[in-house]
Amino acid sequence: MPRIVRTKVEFEGEVRERMAVVEEDHITPWGSGTPLRIVGRSYPRTGGVEVVTGKATYTADVQLPGMLYCRIMRSPHPHAEIASIDYVKAESMSGVRAVLCHANAPGIRWFGDSLLFDRILRYEGEEVAAVAADDEEIADGALSLIRVRYRELPFVVEAEEAMKPGAVQIHPGGNIVGGPDGEVYRRGNVREGFAKADLVVEERYETPAAVHNCLEPHCCVAMWAGDELVLWDSTQHVYGIRNEVAATLGLPLNKVRVISEFIGGGFGCKQGVGKHEIIAALLAKMTGRPVKLALSRRAENLAGGVRHPTIQYLKAGVRRDGTLMALQLRSIANIGAYGMGGSEVGGPIRELYRCPNVLTEQIAIHTNLGPATAFRAPGYMEGMYGLESMMDQIARGLGIDPLQFRLLNYAEKDPMRGVSYSSKHLDKAYRTGASIIGWESRPGGQNAGARRRGFGMASQVWGGGGGPPAYAIVRLNADGTADVLTGTQDIGTGTKTVLSQIAAEELGFKVEDVRVTIGDSRAGPYAPVSAGSMTVPSMGPAVRAAARSAREQLLNLAADLLRVLATELSVKEGKIKSTARPREVAVGEITGRIGDFMIIGQGARGPNPSDAKVRTFGAQFAEVEVDVETGDVTVLRVAAVHDFGRVINPLTLGNQVEGGIVQGTGFALMEERIVDSPTGKALNANLEAYKVPTMLDVPSIESHPIDLPDEICNSIGAKGAGEPPIIPTAPAIANAVFDATGIRIRSLPITRDKLLEEIRRNAAF
Amino acid sequence: MPRIVRTKVEFEGEVRERMAVVEEDHITPWGSGTPLRIVGRSYPRTGGVEVVTGKATYTADVQLPGMLYCRIMRSPHPHAEIASIDYVKAESMSGVRAVLCHANAPGIRWFGDSLLFDRILRYEGEEVAAVAADDEEIADGALSLIRVRYRELPFVVEAEEAMKPGAVQIHPGGNIVGGPDGEVYRRGNVREGFAKADLVVEERYETPAAVHNCLEPHCCVAMWAGDELVLWDSTQHVYGIRNEVAATLGLPLNKVRVISEFIGGGFGCKQGVGKHEIIAALLAKMTGRPVKLALSRRAENLAGGVRHPTIQYLKAGVRRDGTLMALQLRSIANIGAYGMGGSEVGGPIRELYRCPNVLTEQIAIHTNLGPATAFRAPGYMEGMYGLESMMDQIARGLGIDPLQFRLLNYAEKDPMRGVSYSSKHLDKAYRTGASIIGWESRPGGQNAGARRRGFGMASQVWGGGGGPPAYAIVRLNADGTADVLTGTQDIGTGTKTVLSQIAAEELGFKVEDVRVTIGDSRAGPYAPVSAGSMTVPSMGPAVRAAARSAREQLLNLAADLLRVLATELSVKEGKIKSTARPREVAVGEITGRIGDFMIIGQGARGPNPSDAKVRTFGAQFAEVEVDVETGDVTVLRVAAVHDFGRVINPLTLGNQVEGGIVQGTGFALMEERIVDSPTGKALNANLEAYKVPTMLDVPSIESHPIDLPDEICNSIGAKGAGEPPIIPTAPAIANAVFDATGIRIRSLPITRDKLLEEIRRNAAF
Repeated sequence: MPRIVRTKVEFEGEVRERMAVVEEDHITPWGSGTPLRIVGRSYPRTGGVEVVTGKATYTADVQLPGMLYCRIMRSPHPHAEIASIDYVKAESMSGVRAVLCHANAPGIRWFGDSLLFDRILRYEGEEVAAVAADDEEIADGALSLIRVRYRELPFVVEAEEAMKPGAVQIHPGGNIVGGPDGEVYRRGNVREGFAKADLVVEERYETPAAVHNCLEPHCCVAMWAGDELVLWDSTQHVYGIRNEVAATLGLPLNKVRVISEFIGGGFGCKQGVGKHEIIAALLAKMTGRPVKLALSRRAENLAGGVRHPTIQYLKAGVRRDGTLMALQLRSIANIGAYGMGGSEVGGPIRELYRCPNVLTEQIAIHTNLGPATAFRAPGYMEGMYGLESMMDQIARGLGIDPLQFRLLNYAEKDPMRGVSYSSKHLDKAYRTGASIIGWESRPGGQNAGARRRGFGMASQVWGGGGGPPAYAIVRLNADGTADVLTGTQDIGTGTKTVLSQIAAEELGFKVEDVRVTIGDSRAGPYAPVSAGSMTVPSMGPAVRAAARSAREQLLNLAADLLRVLATELSVKEGKIKSTARPREVAVGEITGRIGDFMIIGQGARGPNPSDAKVRTFGAQFAEVEVDVETGDVTVLRVAAVHDFGRVINPLTLGNQVEGGIVQGTGFALMEERIVDSPTGKALNANLEAYKVPTMLDVPSIESHPIDLPDEICNSIGAKGAGEPPIIPTAPAIANAVFDATGIRIRSLPITRDKLLEEIRRNAAF
Repeated sequence: MPRIVRTKVEFEGEVRERMAVVEEDHITPWGSGTPLRIVGRSYPRTGGVEVVTGKATYTADVQLPGMLYCRIMRSPHPHAEIASIDYVKAESMSGVRAVLCHANAPGIRWFGDSLLFDRILRYEGEEVAAVAADDEEIADGALSLIRVRYRELPFVVEAEEAMKPGAVQIHPGGNIVGGPDGEVYRRGNVREGFAKADLVVEERYETPAAVHNCLEPHCCVAMWAGDELVLWDSTQHVYGIRNEVAATLGLPLNKVRVISEFIGGGFGCKQGVGKHEIIAALLAKMTGRPVKLALSRRAENLAGGVRHPTIQYLKAGVRRDGTLMALQLRSIANIGAYGMGGSEVGGPIRELYRCPNVLTEQIAIHTNLGPATAFRAPGYMEGMYGLESMMDQIARGLGIDPLQFRLLNYAEKDPMRGVSYSSKHLDKAYRTGASIIGWESRPGGQNAGARRRGFGMASQVWGGGGGPPAYAIVRLNADGTADVLTGTQDIGTGTKTVLSQIAAEELGFKVEDVRVTIGDSRAGPYAPVSAGSMTVPSMGPAVRAAARSAREQLLNLAADLLRVLATELSVKEGKIKSTARPREVAVGEITGRIGDFMIIGQGARGPNPSDAKVRTFGAQFAEVEVDVETGDVTVLRVAAVHDFGRVINPLTLGNQVEGGIVQGTGFALMEERIVDSPTGKALNANLEAYKVPTMLDVPSIESHPIDLPDEICNSIGAKGAGEPPIIPTAPAIANAVFDATGIRIRSLPITRDKLLEEIRRNAAF
């Protein structure tokens, strides 16, 4: 029987208290001593062959009879009013089945006081009209027949400009979200802290707008079956899309089905419903035919969400002995016209170090840019860059080794609430990483010559504790195979693989005998968003609980048939063993005796620990080579040592770490969505001009997870691993660049022009 | 926790003892006094609008990218050996992707010692080769390029010919299945019974091969997703197809998914796997593309299964006072080359009347005809025609009213095992039917003139008790709606509608807030075949059990939130009421407080009663008009009164009764697959020459179900209704024809030529 718990769930750096319905669930966690056969071993990704051979059905591969194709007309201006729109010609074009725009669309509220199709366009790329046609070429042709007269409005794209009195107002409530100091966190008294410090440093850091650039752009196919909507969607949250689409269209929850079997990346920009899902659903309703809507690369860049640019004013006070006395941050996040709020840029400042006096003010600013959305470790990645750059600077200023400086300020308990961690092995991560990279024997930087090598390091803290609600069902078939059903999704991380291992482990089955069904809100029960590094720590315990129930039922059945006590029985490798008898019996031999039958186990994630804080930790160490003549930075090696609790699958975990470091390298050195302030238009809304790392930019990565189970966070001992690896990469690289050159770039990305300008200014060269 | 039970399940007239895993399930049955709000009321069929507007996706409507079309080449001979086959030209034709025939197909065993593609062809229409091509025209063209040299073999198509010594042998084991007397049932001593009888009658009856003629022919689409097979299939048993296909292809059960959302009729011929599913799966594997295979009308007629023709030698002994002393049947079923066995033609003889001495011998004979399969009430329909024709004849011979004669021999208990019935209201059915048709005041038949009216009646007995295994899951959504998931299917009877009523009743929800998902082995748990009239009595209790578990969880949750005792709470019309407080709270208001959550209830069908026999009963009364000049028989009225236990939905139940009577009318008067004995070929393998009733042939039907809950058979009080209505129609009509004309036709269908021949022979005309 289920019960209600009040539990804390960490999501994107924020701890939220929530009520959840969980089942009674007293499963002994898999501890350090638990002998596991399958969990902890590498298995290649389920469906991996389909993915790399092009056989996997992504949303864009869905083809339905009579399906129409939708194209979107987007605003060419950063701020404008639609004076008139004439879509008669487009509508009457042969092969065009429907046109939607503000003149004929239902008045669906979208953001505050704005509408799905609004007369006011607040950024370059905002949706003006949508056409559904027999093919994409016809739809494109029809778009060119829509005549729009725009009344251009003054605009602002820079956050600090938008904060000024008299700035262009994007929304009636003004540009500053919340109060003028935004979201404030305070502990101790920073003024007193700075007063007691021997050294006070103040710096300004900037991080760019970065585009997620998922291999698969946002895409959906909407089909109505009677009064029910079926939506194939590339999403990080099958059930969230179900809930949001139902709410937006006024449908009951059981009349919306969302399917998302293969997803080509999300990184945060596919967490919630976008306009495209609603537009496709409306057009499908109007035409009585299925409608596919895929965003173009340009639309993805302009309207698909970005990591918000930040400006960080960071001040730190430290005693001569290296004790941090005060930290103060004022961060300004440019969230565009429709971003929901700034992310937790202050997170690392608040919680990484044992600092008694902390003040963070997180300000979010509306501008005439596309919406900011979450992007892998939102806030923490940006904030960690500022904090760990400054820590490096202070350590060097005090003449303390940067690693030693961090250990000096190590937080044994959560500095925010004083509670213990469910587990924390950051010290071990520091030492292991230092050993891998050769930190002690590093040359010491700023060596002469054109190509200069340097070493840098940075820390990571992040959530990853997961939590309820998360549900799973495990069914046993008559041939001794199992089906696991959940409504979760795989955004590319190997959800199916990991859940099949957990189920097989708990069932005592072979991993190949377990099949995991995900990505269908009709088939699987509720599962949370795949974000906040919480898929595995949320779904894993739910699957384990369901598998345990199924195993118990199986053993009772076997005991009945074999005429022994269930307590004498166990399952291993798909065979049932009795302590009393020598002979093993295959599971299928037992279940096969009953003809058609099915054992059904269900499980729910239990509550999070009430008296412990669940965090992931880690450290990355980078060795770089800087060509001081060209400004080229080559990242040679990255050693990554993270504490994710138990490692379920070293192979898929390693992929996560590598992907994070590659993406972090891009953030450090090249990624930046550039908007021209005078015109308010994006200059690199494509993958030619927006640079992402290629194979040649990828450093040699040595990843070494700590792999100590967290016996408090949940029953599987694993914390999340999706976001942590991206967090420390950029500051580690920036610190290594300083080590190599003596130049500290406080505005990412560290591009050739920035470096060369500093080199030119610097007499040392 | 589940437990194993040994339970009896009735299937196609046969009682099988089986083991099943059921959950502890002590639900008080809905009895006569239980006030029900939703169960018992008419609701139009869920998805009915989609069906009649052509929006429903039947298997033939499934379109997949890159899908190929398969056509089958079939044997032109009733018995032949393939001497040689040349398919090189066909294979190299542009657009042809694969050809399968005995020369290159894997050696999959199909029936006894035969193969999927066999060198020996045992009936006209047997599969010779299959082509997968880009479209159907290319596939047809390719078939015409396959050159086959046949060595024709002697053949036999008549059962009594095939029984003779020296007859052509279809299989090595001979043509007679089982011993020479087939399946024998004996109680008492018929020889002694006949000796004590005052009147002994012996007759020979014949029933034809009837074709199911589902609106939707057999059709499937096979697609491989990696090592998993997805099969869209028009089937009566989603899980059975999963199991059989997996076994045939050597796949684990969790690597086969069967989908069957809308089905255009089954009537018994879509219960098990056919060659077409395996051929499509093999071709899809060979080509790496999805393959659709739909049988043509001609293939449907030749190879899709038929009701086996029967010859029945029936002998009855009766005392002058009307007491049945002995019944003896020797039935011969022509099951074609690959029919599995004869059906229960002796069933009605064994169990309808309280007769102390009974002997039935059911013989099944292989011939060179297409396979016989189950067809709505297999055996019972044929046997009832013979038995009830003879009862009419005897009653008239004794000068007893036929209805009175039946009541004289009424079985209060099961005559086979002496146990009580879970419920039996056949006597009420007799009286109600007689009253509706005006039996007492009927003119008395054989009136003069060209158009002669007559009245006839017949009884029905059949299973319909259902049983385990049957599983369901009920999920409650945060907005107060519910999802029911089961792996069952709707062969056209309204499964979704009825299950949504049962779930809504038990949950206390509105019926429109409950959505039922069926027809997908991945989404829903195991459900039995939709045959044997057992979908509702099997699935209904499983759904009720799952809904009850969900409701209990909901009330516990509400009690927790409202701070009252759960025992004070109830749900009605989607509102939670407390006995202690006046205010009602909508379910969604409670569930909505918890954010994302899901209550999951699961339920399994409990065991059948061990000490009672579950049967459906009924009687039909027909009024006909016979034109003795043309031989035309017009069925004017049929009164149908059946005891199905509780009526869940009068509307959908009424449709079942009407459909049964229409199909029964066809069987009585026109349906017959005609095979020419000298050539062994079918003469009417199409819907032009094979006659089925049209709207003009449908009588006025007055259906009046008894509607008394069976409080013993299961927790919902309902028995099955799929097959019973077809059983008594033909004998009622035949008896009415006799009443009108004095002519008794003992060979169905009662066609003009048979009637006119008798009329010509009969001096009375």
